[in-house]
Amino acid sequence: MFVTFEGGEGAGKSTQVKKLAAWCSRQGIPCLVTHEPGGTPLGQQLRSLLLESQISVDERAELLLYSADRAQHIGEVITPALKRGEIVLCDRFTDSTVAYQGYGRQLNLDWIEQLNTMATNGLAPDLTFWLNIPPEVGLARKNSQALDRLELSGIDFHRRIYAGFLALEEAYPTRIFRIDATQAPEQVFSQILEKFCSVYDSSLKA
Amino acid sequence: MFVTFEGGEGAGKSTQVKKLAAWCSRQGIPCLVTHEPGGTPLGQQLRSLLLESQISVDERAELLLYSADRAQHIGEVITPALKRGEIVLCDRFTDSTVAYQGYGRQLNLDWIEQLNTMATNGLAPDLTFWLNIPPEVGLARKNSQALDRLELSGIDFHRRIYAGFLALEEAYPTRIFRIDATQAPEQVFSQILEKFCSVYDSSLKA
Repeated sequence: MFVTFEGGEGAGKSTQVKKLAAWCSRQGIPCLVTHEPGGTPLGQQLRSLLLESQISVDERAELLLYSADRAQHIGEVITPALKRGEIVLCDRFTDSTVAYQGYGRQLNLDWIEQLNTMATNGLAPDLTFWLNIPPEVGLARKNSQALDRLELSGIDFHRRIYAGFLALEEAYPTRIFRIDATQAPEQVFSQILEKFCSVYDSSLKA
Repeated sequence: MFVTFEGGEGAGKSTQVKKLAAWCSRQGIPCLVTHEPGGTPLGQQLRSLLLESQISVDERAELLLYSADRAQHIGEVITPALKRGEIVLCDRFTDSTVAYQGYGRQLNLDWIEQLNTMATNGLAPDLTFWLNIPPEVGLARKNSQALDRLELSGIDFHRRIYAGFLALEEAYPTRIFRIDATQAPEQVFSQILEKFCSVYDSSLKA
């Protein structure tokens, strides 16, 4: 079972991924926690080029680097874990590319769909949690932290990303489960857990 | 005018690029010499990941990294130089991706064509010199040098690459000009110069 966590800045994705992983571990359910970009040694190099370096990166090159990170991640980490029967919990995946590069950077959505198919070899998540938070609220939460290149791109960029997640939810209503991420982390987690268990139970029956 | 130099290992591309650049310079023709991968600061980082590092790189990730290198190169170097009216001489371009990743690695040729279109924004060379050398001869020429990751991939790989260049020549007979690269460098250069001048003269008349 392949579960992804998506959302804008400050939505609390990594907190929730950790909570669900800890819960799985207490239940004795084998689970692997990973993230994009940077879920492999190659990906870590690419992540630092994309988010931390001062090197100029063209928008189309950026899109292709995220796709390369994903192809490596699928081949080296995600597919092997799924084959071993583990549950994979992934912080950001293809929806982030659609929202950030497609809606945020306004690159060609057909290209992005083709690239996502190439990079994933057609593998799609079984379940996606969209931690929904208005961009103003999410960015304010992060204000005390150091902001990376994407986070510094201005409020309009983050509003377009938000519109992207809305469009994705509409396009994939059975896969994407929206959660109000302005709630307290414990409330968010209890809703995640309830949905996760219902999908996990049906997957065991199937 | 955008001119690319293609061919397998040991074909002598970089020698010929330098000779043509020196000739242009003596004629007072503004010209920019560049290469793939690695024609930009981002590309240099990617080149070292692709060719020199010990980090594992999945074949599809490799293809996407070459495409990212190309997108950056087009946006940062090639298009601006062409807009300034310079002649661009480029050591390897899209044909190498078709030959190495498509035929050599046997990745999906339709994907590669789509990626080349995305990365180049549709820009194609006006003239391509294919320095044609049998793979056994080319690799033997390089024997005294340190071989990088691609060069170490075995003779079958390099024979498939050769078949790829043959297929490209057949598909693009007006763009691709084949030269026998087993000849002495001076002979190779005189044939390059003759073809270059004829295309350059027609471009001035157009």
